[in-house]
Amino acid sequence: MKEYFVNVPVIKYEGKDSKNPFAFKYYNPDELVGGKTMKEHLRFTMSYWHTLTANGTDPFGVGTYEKPWDGETDPIKLARMRLEGAFEFMNKLGIDYFAFHDRDIAPEGKDLAETNAILDEIVAYAKELMAKHNKKLLWGTANMFSNPRFVHGAATTCNADVYAYAAAQVKKALEITNELGGENYVFWGGREGYETLLNTNLKLEQDNLARLFHMAVDYAKKIGFTGQFLIEPKPKEPTKHQYDFDVAAVLAFLRKYNLDNYFKVNIEANHATLAGHTFQHEVAMARINGALGSLDINQGDPNLGWDTDQFPTNIYDAALIMYEVLKNGGIAPGGLNFDAKVRRASFEAEDLFLGYIAGMDTLAKGLKVAYKMFEEGEFEKVVEDRYRSFSEGIGKDIIEGKVDFEALERYALNNSTIKNKSGRQELLEAKLNQYIFNE
Amino acid sequence: MKEYFVNVPVIKYEGKDSKNPFAFKYYNPDELVGGKTMKEHLRFTMSYWHTLTANGTDPFGVGTYEKPWDGETDPIKLARMRLEGAFEFMNKLGIDYFAFHDRDIAPEGKDLAETNAILDEIVAYAKELMAKHNKKLLWGTANMFSNPRFVHGAATTCNADVYAYAAAQVKKALEITNELGGENYVFWGGREGYETLLNTNLKLEQDNLARLFHMAVDYAKKIGFTGQFLIEPKPKEPTKHQYDFDVAAVLAFLRKYNLDNYFKVNIEANHATLAGHTFQHEVAMARINGALGSLDINQGDPNLGWDTDQFPTNIYDAALIMYEVLKNGGIAPGGLNFDAKVRRASFEAEDLFLGYIAGMDTLAKGLKVAYKMFEEGEFEKVVEDRYRSFSEGIGKDIIEGKVDFEALERYALNNSTIKNKSGRQELLEAKLNQYIFNE
Amino acid sequence: MKEYFVNVPVIKYEGKDSKNPFAFKYYNPDELVGGKTMKEHLRFTMSYWHTLTANGTDPFGVGTYEKPWDGETDPIKLARMRLEGAFEFMNKLGIDYFAFHDRDIAPEGKDLAETNAILDEIVAYAKELMAKHNKKLLWGTANMFSNPRFVHGAATTCNADVYAYAAAQVKKALEITNELGGENYVFWGGREGYETLLNTNLKLEQDNLARLFHMAVDYAKKIGFTGQFLIEPKPKEPTKHQYDFDVAAVLAFLRKYNLDNYFKVNIEANHATLAGHTFQHEVAMARINGALGSLDINQGDPNLGWDTDQFPTNIYDAALIMYEVLKNGGIAPGGLNFDAKVRRASFEAEDLFLGYIAGMDTLAKGLKVAYKMFEEGEFEKVVEDRYRSFSEGIGKDIIEGKVDFEALERYALNNSTIKNKSGRQELLEAKLNQYIFNE
Amino acid sequence: MKEYFVNVPVIKYEGKDSKNPFAFKYYNPDELVGGKTMKEHLRFTMSYWHTLTANGTDPFGVGTYEKPWDGETDPIKLARMRLEGAFEFMNKLGIDYFAFHDRDIAPEGKDLAETNAILDEIVAYAKELMAKHNKKLLWGTANMFSNPRFVHGAATTCNADVYAYAAAQVKKALEITNELGGENYVFWGGREGYETLLNTNLKLEQDNLARLFHMAVDYAKKIGFTGQFLIEPKPKEPTKHQYDFDVAAVLAFLRKYNLDNYFKVNIEANHATLAGHTFQHEVAMARINGALGSLDINQGDPNLGWDTDQFPTNIYDAALIMYEVLKNGGIAPGGLNFDAKVRRASFEAEDLFLGYIAGMDTLAKGLKVAYKMFEEGEFEKVVEDRYRSFSEGIGKDIIEGKVDFEALERYALNNSTIKNKSGRQELLEAKLNQYIFNE
Repeated sequence: MKEYFVNVPVIKYEGKDSKNPFAFKYYNPDELVGGKTMKEHLRFTMSYWHTLTANGTDPFGVGTYEKPWDGETDPIKLARMRLEGAFEFMNKLGIDYFAFHDRDIAPEGKDLAETNAILDEIVAYAKELMAKHNKKLLWGTANMFSNPRFVHGAATTCNADVYAYAAAQVKKALEITNELGGENYVFWGGREGYETLLNTNLKLEQDNLARLFHMAVDYAKKIGFTGQFLIEPKPKEPTKHQYDFDVAAVLAFLRKYNLDNYFKVNIEANHATLAGHTFQHEVAMARINGALGSLDINQGDPNLGWDTDQFPTNIYDAALIMYEVLKNGGIAPGGLNFDAKVRRASFEAEDLFLGYIAGMDTLAKGLKVAYKMFEEGEFEKVVEDRYRSFSEGIGKDIIEGKVDFEALERYALNNSTIKNKSGRQELLEAKLNQYIFNE
Repeated sequence: MKEYFVNVPVIKYEGKDSKNPFAFKYYNPDELVGGKTMKEHLRFTMSYWHTLTANGTDPFGVGTYEKPWDGETDPIKLARMRLEGAFEFMNKLGIDYFAFHDRDIAPEGKDLAETNAILDEIVAYAKELMAKHNKKLLWGTANMFSNPRFVHGAATTCNADVYAYAAAQVKKALEITNELGGENYVFWGGREGYETLLNTNLKLEQDNLARLFHMAVDYAKKIGFTGQFLIEPKPKEPTKHQYDFDVAAVLAFLRKYNLDNYFKVNIEANHATLAGHTFQHEVAMARINGALGSLDINQGDPNLGWDTDQFPTNIYDAALIMYEVLKNGGIAPGGLNFDAKVRRASFEAEDLFLGYIAGMDTLAKGLKVAYKMFEEGEFEKVVEDRYRSFSEGIGKDIIEGKVDFEALERYALNNSTIKNKSGRQELLEAKLNQYIFNE
Repeated sequence: MKEYFVNVPVIKYEGKDSKNPFAFKYYNPDELVGGKTMKEHLRFTMSYWHTLTANGTDPFGVGTYEKPWDGETDPIKLARMRLEGAFEFMNKLGIDYFAFHDRDIAPEGKDLAETNAILDEIVAYAKELMAKHNKKLLWGTANMFSNPRFVHGAATTCNADVYAYAAAQVKKALEITNELGGENYVFWGGREGYETLLNTNLKLEQDNLARLFHMAVDYAKKIGFTGQFLIEPKPKEPTKHQYDFDVAAVLAFLRKYNLDNYFKVNIEANHATLAGHTFQHEVAMARINGALGSLDINQGDPNLGWDTDQFPTNIYDAALIMYEVLKNGGIAPGGLNFDAKVRRASFEAEDLFLGYIAGMDTLAKGLKVAYKMFEEGEFEKVVEDRYRSFSEGIGKDIIEGKVDFEALERYALNNSTIKNKSGRQELLEAKLNQYIFNE
Repeated sequence: MKEYFVNVPVIKYEGKDSKNPFAFKYYNPDELVGGKTMKEHLRFTMSYWHTLTANGTDPFGVGTYEKPWDGETDPIKLARMRLEGAFEFMNKLGIDYFAFHDRDIAPEGKDLAETNAILDEIVAYAKELMAKHNKKLLWGTANMFSNPRFVHGAATTCNADVYAYAAAQVKKALEITNELGGENYVFWGGREGYETLLNTNLKLEQDNLARLFHMAVDYAKKIGFTGQFLIEPKPKEPTKHQYDFDVAAVLAFLRKYNLDNYFKVNIEANHATLAGHTFQHEVAMARINGALGSLDINQGDPNLGWDTDQFPTNIYDAALIMYEVLKNGGIAPGGLNFDAKVRRASFEAEDLFLGYIAGMDTLAKGLKVAYKMFEEGEFEKVVEDRYRSFSEGIGKDIIEGKVDFEALERYALNNSTIKNKSGRQELLEAKLNQYIFNE
């Protein structure tokens, strides 16, 4: 097969002192961390859209990215070249998983029938390449936000024809995800929200969204798709307000419509911060609700109010979310998907690799820091000590439901001294730094 | 009874051209709007804390407010003077309702028993004054955030002794709310959140919060309190993250713990904006989920990241939330509570009245605008037309659950042309302006 | 000439009760407001880019706008059609001014020479149409942000070849602005900032920016261009940090490089809010520094962190900035330029007109409110009274420079009582509402 | 002298693996870094207000901090105890500098004369303790924001009597700063801004602010104070808008009023982030303008919109600002002042030490990372290479002012190919991580 990224070698682990930009300094795929390899822990995933299809456009300028297939104008040939490039890219980085939207991997045709036919052709080729290169599909999804037909939403559109089209598109995307052995199926409702409440029927739109999810669950059973359904929260952009605002909004929705047994969440760092949360917060909220499905690892800029989708290089986020993942017993069948793009000014093809290396090294370092925290249990012990009063006496009675307001009032009236202890936040932050600095 | 606000007359409606600062220009309490008086629609409520107890302190400076009881040092006498002042204040503004925290109206004693005794004394006096002045209690609540004992939370504390105290405090607050005929009982969890995840047991804290709510529901039944329970969402401040972040987070919580039949929400404008939502969004989300309980009307500053609790003077918010209230069939048994304080630089006693007048006039104007929108049905018609495709053909089938993915795919494959129509946002915004400008 | 917007009539003033979407309700161009017509006060300007060239693309979806020239593929013909459409658009709305970027009105050629030749052709046609339709150019500018060559900036690029290109482009843009009688020339440095400080020479970049501005001043003198130079502040987007962050940053820059005699500012509402300011703040800061040049009237969404460029429909902003303009003695030779685009979901050609009507009506209403405030002088009187202590006694001495620290200390030591008065913010906000509601 | 913090030993450096909470892991004061000790580089400074005077109050709750002098009610005795505690605190942490506001160290008396007398008494005692313990004053300042008299501002008040008082207060603060050998004098204008433009004379207020600064410069000369004057930017809080919004706003102001030769800036991390900047941005902007004076090291929470003043534990900020300091040739006569407070839930006296240790260790680590970056010059080399085109050919001509628009146009017309290179942001971020992880 033709080599596309001719200037980039296979990326190897060279250790922390390497000066080679095209080498891992911290990510050593086969290194054991607590009995599992780094690779097994991290389940790194290539995002097809940002890596293969995107071109560096922003709202104020046209594309800048240089890609090996620049100049190819036949859309089918282009799709095949990108696919080949994708596998070379994964091979060179040692990534086993990828994730895609239907419209990333294959162009649309003149109508749905032709579009589906093109998709089938590309999917067949993808399947062939997956077998050949031993790669797996973390998840598939349907892009129901780029085409103008979705201008008012897909499952929450005001136009029943569009809704039908969206249903057909999800049906097909489920089929191809199943065909490729996808381990999950994701819904990101990029246009499922509103621009202005002045023209919106909030209730109908959300009822319709639930209807489509129920149909998807039914159809998955029918075709034997056993992957996990995931919803990816995002608060806004491109809409003014997206219904799946954050983990809490998704849980409220799933519980209302009896969908909570079928769906978990795919949490993206940058979406968390746009919603006013830390990444760790969203991951922890999902975890304690049994809803942690998969992660889109990237990062935003706290001073910028849009989805910058930067490669994740912040060690604090990396350590803290890997700590949550370890407490969750791992992320599988989800993974760590690089929903990240190089900056528009990082337009050379090599930059793509450099971005992934930056991210993979950061997460690898984060895993090691987190594992040490997890293994040594220092933070867990702090937490246990802090809440100890709930494992004995009146606290135990509270937890076990043995007391009511009257009993608690009697207790309080007779308890003349209440003594709190410091939360020791600064010490814990220093301790976290010590784990990071010393790892 | 002694007159406290000697420089302020009874505030009367003088009409839109009045130049008298101490007169209503738009709020005409007995004016009929669609068969109900303005007063009945708006159910204005005085907040005890900002109006009587607050002193204008901010994080960088001490109090500035001048109050008629300045100089009184005996805490019980002071509490009684404030109470008398409160009724004079309501009388002069023609406000029928008030709302309070237990610790607003009465000082704490040396222990819980004494505190409760003091509270009983003040409540008895409040009851007497309510009867005399024909005033009603919109809601009561327990202040479980000011005292240092709640430094780690109340129902979500790590200290079981504090939890017991909080339960006892809610019990008492429920009793006095019941005693005064309160129509609702509010929980605002000012410290129910976390400062750092490094020392927090998220799941235990939220389980415990649910336990306390269930005990409250049980105890209300026991004492015959039939008012509505309300939770007031706020995303943060004073905590880094408050569990009742926004309406969606509250709904997710209530549904998880089977509390959704017992609780509605009390939505505050400024809390909505701190969570990244418009006030209307939160009200609409509550309404379509059958959870709209009551409103704390105030406003924030979009450029300031803390709870400024300004008096509501923005006509857009006023009109749009009154429109939601009208679509909800009214706000009762909730009301419009002025959770608002005058600016620290508006420190003269008269400013309090001027703030309420500003807010009441704005809401009155908003009601009239909203009623015209509601009555003429222009916006509703736009919405109906926009979603018409769901009342016939394939759309109707979708709504009625008659179609699955396969049927919808067949439809989509045979539907060669999809035609969307403009959402006409700019026209609708101009129309809203026209309603506002012409009312 | 061919009619493009065949479904849209000439927009006429029909008064506040008109139900005709294609009519002005408040903007009556010839109505006198304080001796000048509304048209003279407001100097409305059509932005070429959003109105003619934009297509509704956003970062998550392709264009949606329907334009009368859709289907035309020859770039020159397309440019001519847009130009004709632009004049029809201005005629139908009764707008006298337009503003453009060089790359809006004409496509780029294969090199700079060809690009300039194409530009000359289109400019000649524009000049012809301007004369025929009696239209004027408020300002011209060079688009130095869309083309990939400007990926690292134009005047602040790290690449001297790009700098030279940028200089040549500004030269040409100045020439055509002069040729068309432009009354101002604007610099918006969309890429003049940085993405990361790790690779940036801050000082060199800003020095180079100043160099280019000086060259522009020199060249303007040479060619006899007497229009006003303007800088348009924006804090970020597309860059992480733009040097012309806000009015203060521009003033700091101009004063450092001795450019303050040659430049004023063109303030955009949405840019102000992205920088954490109100629109009025930026306008007022420019005014008191003698630097108020022109206004880009649009509005952002306080909950969205990017430049939404919505049509201005908020009456508070409209009234308050027109109040500043009146205090400034008018905005000429600047104007009120609609740097606003219809929402992506408002994609029908008619929506463009509806957006302008919404904005023009709002500003017209704002002018009338502002004029009444200005004429009656209520707010000015409040301000005068508030600072009266500086027109007499020790205050006057301070203003006149007659006292030093020692004199002031003597005064303070002997002045036992300091008495402040309330700032009356709530009353003033109510008063502003009264002006708005009653106008 | 009495020991106050009896549970806290002298804090020693024990190295990175120490588990002792009361030990430094990275800050080794006498360790040489590039020929200077860590202590000389970092010039750590204790903030008097947060460390000694603050009590943990927040807008929703009363104080929680436990201090060794709790219970002392005589204000003078209390001030003396705090002062003694301050020196013990500095001694135990090995900090040489402190900074204070006049009203931190001494209580106000019944009038200015008495206040000044009390201040003199405490200052005399401070001087004695400074000599005894060999401590130095980094800077003094006047608190002109806490007292109600400053409700409308101090130098920007509308009340000339208040202005006179402020002038007298600055005069005295300058004198005591001089008396104690202060190396700088700081102005933070906590109330120097506005709440609403509706009642504000922007120009008069800023003119008056400049007048006071000029008087301060004059008086400093008169009394022989040779320390550096500093302005501390902050965008807002407690005001809606503070005039010294950010470094750029301060520079614009200083240049307008010819104060730029006398003033530099004291940059606080949390103030930078509230203004929408990174800490590094503000430091770099000050540096390239020759205005970097001193640093208030703390950190904010990117999800919280108020000044949280947390102890600085983010290694990225620490490394990047120390890198700027090294490029500046050091920070002296400024220093690194801990304008940071322990969280309200970290209320035990020990937490204060733990907070300082957390911060000092982070900055020490940051210094070492930064020094390595500085010494190895990797980033500087990247920057040099990136701008190389400006050291030769047309680029050199541009820098040297040899070319005008016409020459540059000729060059551009003849330059058919422009080739940019990637900005390599992801690689540089990975490199920064490598410096941090490997140090």
